[in-house]
Amino acid sequence: MAGNTFGTLFKLTTFGESHGQAIGGVIDGCPAGLTIDLEEIQNELDKRKPGQSAIVTQRKEDDKVEFLSGIFEGKTTGTSIGFIIKNTNQKSKDYSHIKDVFRPSHADFTYEKKYGIRDYRGGGRSSARETACRVVAGAIAKQFLGKISFHAFTSSVGDLFINKPYQDLDFSLTESTAVRCPDLDVAHKMIEKIKAIRKEGDTIGGTVTCVIKNVPVGLGEPVFDKLHAELGKAMLSINAVKGFEYGSGFCGAKMKGSEHNDIFNVNGSTITNLSGGIQGGISNGMDIYFRVAFKPVATVIQKQDTIDKFGNKVVMEGKGRHDPCVVPRAVPIVEAMAALVIADFMLQNSNSKI
Amino acid sequence: MAGNTFGTLFKLTTFGESHGQAIGGVIDGCPAGLTIDLEEIQNELDKRKPGQSAIVTQRKEDDKVEFLSGIFEGKTTGTSIGFIIKNTNQKSKDYSHIKDVFRPSHADFTYEKKYGIRDYRGGGRSSARETACRVVAGAIAKQFLGKISFHAFTSSVGDLFINKPYQDLDFSLTESTAVRCPDLDVAHKMIEKIKAIRKEGDTIGGTVTCVIKNVPVGLGEPVFDKLHAELGKAMLSINAVKGFEYGSGFCGAKMKGSEHNDIFNVNGSTITNLSGGIQGGISNGMDIYFRVAFKPVATVIQKQDTIDKFGNKVVMEGKGRHDPCVVPRAVPIVEAMAALVIADFMLQNSNSKI
Amino acid sequence: MAGNTFGTLFKLTTFGESHGQAIGGVIDGCPAGLTIDLEEIQNELDKRKPGQSAIVTQRKEDDKVEFLSGIFEGKTTGTSIGFIIKNTNQKSKDYSHIKDVFRPSHADFTYEKKYGIRDYRGGGRSSARETACRVVAGAIAKQFLGKISFHAFTSSVGDLFINKPYQDLDFSLTESTAVRCPDLDVAHKMIEKIKAIRKEGDTIGGTVTCVIKNVPVGLGEPVFDKLHAELGKAMLSINAVKGFEYGSGFCGAKMKGSEHNDIFNVNGSTITNLSGGIQGGISNGMDIYFRVAFKPVATVIQKQDTIDKFGNKVVMEGKGRHDPCVVPRAVPIVEAMAALVIADFMLQNSNSKI
Amino acid sequence: MAGNTFGTLFKLTTFGESHGQAIGGVIDGCPAGLTIDLEEIQNELDKRKPGQSAIVTQRKEDDKVEFLSGIFEGKTTGTSIGFIIKNTNQKSKDYSHIKDVFRPSHADFTYEKKYGIRDYRGGGRSSARETACRVVAGAIAKQFLGKISFHAFTSSVGDLFINKPYQDLDFSLTESTAVRCPDLDVAHKMIEKIKAIRKEGDTIGGTVTCVIKNVPVGLGEPVFDKLHAELGKAMLSINAVKGFEYGSGFCGAKMKGSEHNDIFNVNGSTITNLSGGIQGGISNGMDIYFRVAFKPVATVIQKQDTIDKFGNKVVMEGKGRHDPCVVPRAVPIVEAMAALVIADFMLQNSNSKI
Repeated sequence: MAGNTFGTLFKLTTFGESHGQAIGGVIDGCPAGLTIDLEEIQNELDKRKPGQSAIVTQRKEDDKVEFLSGIFEGKTTGTSIGFIIKNTNQKSKDYSHIKDVFRPSHADFTYEKKYGIRDYRGGGRSSARETACRVVAGAIAKQFLGKISFHAFTSSVGDLFINKPYQDLDFSLTESTAVRCPDLDVAHKMIEKIKAIRKEGDTIGGTVTCVIKNVPVGLGEPVFDKLHAELGKAMLSINAVKGFEYGSGFCGAKMKGSEHNDIFNVNGSTITNLSGGIQGGISNGMDIYFRVAFKPVATVIQKQDTIDKFGNKVVMEGKGRHDPCVVPRAVPIVEAMAALVIADFMLQNSNSKI
Repeated sequence: MAGNTFGTLFKLTTFGESHGQAIGGVIDGCPAGLTIDLEEIQNELDKRKPGQSAIVTQRKEDDKVEFLSGIFEGKTTGTSIGFIIKNTNQKSKDYSHIKDVFRPSHADFTYEKKYGIRDYRGGGRSSARETACRVVAGAIAKQFLGKISFHAFTSSVGDLFINKPYQDLDFSLTESTAVRCPDLDVAHKMIEKIKAIRKEGDTIGGTVTCVIKNVPVGLGEPVFDKLHAELGKAMLSINAVKGFEYGSGFCGAKMKGSEHNDIFNVNGSTITNLSGGIQGGISNGMDIYFRVAFKPVATVIQKQDTIDKFGNKVVMEGKGRHDPCVVPRAVPIVEAMAALVIADFMLQNSNSKI
Repeated sequence: MAGNTFGTLFKLTTFGESHGQAIGGVIDGCPAGLTIDLEEIQNELDKRKPGQSAIVTQRKEDDKVEFLSGIFEGKTTGTSIGFIIKNTNQKSKDYSHIKDVFRPSHADFTYEKKYGIRDYRGGGRSSARETACRVVAGAIAKQFLGKISFHAFTSSVGDLFINKPYQDLDFSLTESTAVRCPDLDVAHKMIEKIKAIRKEGDTIGGTVTCVIKNVPVGLGEPVFDKLHAELGKAMLSINAVKGFEYGSGFCGAKMKGSEHNDIFNVNGSTITNLSGGIQGGISNGMDIYFRVAFKPVATVIQKQDTIDKFGNKVVMEGKGRHDPCVVPRAVPIVEAMAALVIADFMLQNSNSKI
Repeated sequence: MAGNTFGTLFKLTTFGESHGQAIGGVIDGCPAGLTIDLEEIQNELDKRKPGQSAIVTQRKEDDKVEFLSGIFEGKTTGTSIGFIIKNTNQKSKDYSHIKDVFRPSHADFTYEKKYGIRDYRGGGRSSARETACRVVAGAIAKQFLGKISFHAFTSSVGDLFINKPYQDLDFSLTESTAVRCPDLDVAHKMIEKIKAIRKEGDTIGGTVTCVIKNVPVGLGEPVFDKLHAELGKAMLSINAVKGFEYGSGFCGAKMKGSEHNDIFNVNGSTITNLSGGIQGGISNGMDIYFRVAFKPVATVIQKQDTIDKFGNKVVMEGKGRHDPCVVPRAVPIVEAMAALVIADFMLQNSNSKI
């Protein structure tokens, strides 16, 4: 039971290794008649692609998506949408130095043990390269969702945090810096920090916050498929994610009920929104917001002790062009996964009542 | 698409409202030939039941599980296991005062909007009463899992935290206090805190930490069904949960790669375990540990402004016997959901290689 | 992966053995707000129950369904609908004579080999008793489907066939005889045949035909979940079924394209309907009709050579009160499974286009 | 909920239209470590491809499969296997004459009504071209299944039938004629028949029989996912299929229990095999055999009255190079779908008992 499918009605199935011929996917369940803006999909992909700025990996991959089916004369036809992204860069490198080595805090060891075999080139299937397919599908989900808008941004890098509520941020500034933090003062510090970290040959973690606006009331399918439970699964399925919280999150666990309760306005909206837009696993029409923790990238350009598959101690040193901080490139991935969740629940909610 | 089923191979489907005739469930996919210890299942249920101590709700519900199928002469037969827990208490109360009222930070509003109808008695399906069925199924999952052990405990109440790594705790003490915190000094403070909160007519949040030991290498199904992604979904599907983190969690997002990487021992174990026992979405044989944030219970015994379904402002005052802090009773639920996830991945992993 | 769930959105999960405490099920995905006619559900169950006429088994089982959840003040609430049917008759019999014996053409041998254990009493889970749960769920599906009507009937018993197209039959006569054949001349012959077969201690096979009227255009989800593919699976999942054909069926395999094509009327209906109401796996608005083959019941009241689980030859003789022909009692089961399929596709079709 | 995925653990998801850029699919759940014989996969594809003999369509399509992922150094890695087959022929034709026309007994009308849009070129997604992807996945399933062997063959064309039990046939002769009938006398008559039908501009139906040997005891997941129920669904999902029967099939419905029961040998095999290798939905170790009815191809090279999407009567005449009888090319598809079902149940059965 390999888990390469996400979603119940709006479904994405992906395939592809970092250094195989291509990665790709199949989107099934997208309603027919949706006009597809291909350029907008490519724009989303470009936000994720390597080499886009000075603070991300300098690998050059021209992630160009090709649609093979399911779109006819510019519209979805209701049939499955197949797409591929060719791995143009895949033959250029020698991976023999890591063929038999288990890199610390990578998936080498667990893949080898689980499957008895692994495509070691660039991490194979465990590479975050597969998330490009999620961005493609998420971009289609966004087009399906129309006015529901997704606003993810870098909310911390190491110990540099945005110290404002999201309501005080101008999301139109997110794309104005390479770090994708809409608080520009903080953004500039983050960029300096990442540059410094890179010079050390080290890496740094961070968090992404995402705000979803204009979600209708009623999304989410209790008791197990609660809206925030699926959002949590979606985020935790992204490479390097270590935690998820929504609304008041871990802070809420310190609060009293009398402080935490969101009092209603007469129109059904609430004065505060510690609930994060979700009550009982169902959207209540308020903004949905959540925060996702990313660990520092495991590939450091430093000597590390490790072992090989034969049980020998070895010393390895990361080389190549890796991200010093994964968070800026994770922003479009967080949005894409959120869009897939919301699109899926939109479809599921069609049948909540007669 | 109502989401009342959890799991892919080891599956639980539940039904039941707080004040209907019974709640219950069907477990499908449990292998045949497993000897079932019914008493042990009831023990787990008793840890969740109301009225068990001075710091939980004083409602009296004798949650007695009855198995209707799938177990023959003390063993599972491979067929679906049906069970019910009767609602013995369900007729005793008058709910007319909340029939048309939307309680703040409850699911009343969202259920009403999503379904156009709701069983308002005691929260109906949105009541945490349904988690009793999860405990039953989790208890069977634990018996299937044998030596894999689950150690959940209360790690914080409000701002009272255990300030030790879990390795320094004696899990055999968890059940020795009503609050289920194995650090007894902290436990006593937590109990005092909860009693004080109750006197105020208020409630308080907290966190549960869970450690899973003896998990074999190889569980988890990338790329979407990563072990921690399913654990996260499982936890977030529990009533009142606002956040989930595993291993280094949100702290990991502040760290550098050179600090965060877990260096291997020659036997494949790691010196540190910031990964939380999971690499690339697959268990690596180290302890799995994670933390779950619970918000304060929304029912406070204080006057609150709210609205009714006709759009009128009303003042309501919680009454009855509610939990001042949900965390102690959540401990067995966290273990149960964790056991369901691990059992499911054990079955899925049977086919990872030829 | 035990297969006790049917359906994708309108889902039924069942449990229960022939001689356990109860059988039952959970219906998930039924939209909220549907008024439920409990009496009508019981009527459907009564058509399936043993002892209803002179030509079926004379066992007395009072199959009374009890709903435990999901219905509030007469309407569905959108939450899962749990129900049980108690096995009132289950302690009355001694099954030690078949405890270790594999009855010919029963599931004893395969259950024992697959699971290593079986509840041998009355066939356990392999008993057709479980189909009562299907009838309950199918009755709810019918109420959801409103004007879509299901007309199943006995179309043959042994070599006695109805020799008319279904359009010439009066379906209001189906329930007028115990054999449920609306062609009364044939019905009387069938009844005599079944009585004669019973006297011989033997059993006889037959077919059920089902016509579904007023199905809207558009149901079915190609390429794998074609409408007729799911109908076929649904029917083949019923005990004793050996074959399924729809529209022209096996006869169509002898025909030429020029004879077989259904020519359109200008309103989109077709002059002929060899397609059986389905084109390309999707309903076209014409009547759907199909035929289901049932083998003769395996329990004969005659001496038969067989083996026991220890590999010994033994002679056994069926005893008790068994059906000489399963077809009359299968009629409501065929309708129920058809209704579940149509209800499921109705929900799925909500999202076919934007 | 578009139904483009088949299988529960060994899963195939397909995409692609007849005249898009490519068709393809993703196989998920194939265990790691399986050596893949690519040539053998291509051989299976070649049995399905157009233009292979004088009695099938003379379209030239060089169906060459390209694997993009999931296979590394000749072995499966446990990750999803993506593949495409380019549509080399897709630009060569003018489809404007059927753009707005609903061809009789094709899926044009139902796709248009369901989706509001369709790719009309060559039938789009409703074209049997998609079955090439099934053949690819089925070929991998066969390699996984090792010694379990699949023997499908043409058992009738129109009213020309093989009049022998399958045990008297030499399956090594199936591929010796273009019609894939191992009874060579009948094969030659079938070929003449098909040639004559083609000259008339007409088409003819037929049946495929499939025998599966060496299936272990225990496959199938009652109560809904019975082995024959999934086989039935698999076959009915193939284009042009109208019926399915296994073992005694529709003939069994005419028989008495005393004739129909399969008496055991002491080793658990049975003397007769009217059960078709399946008891209670679970394989019993005997040969599995079933029969599939195919309607005549709807495209006839004759004038036919029909309608267009605007509700006008039009006269159309099929042109181009179509199959006069689909059955010979259906033989590898039947085997492929059978292999997918058996592989899926092999994986599911891993967990039937502890």
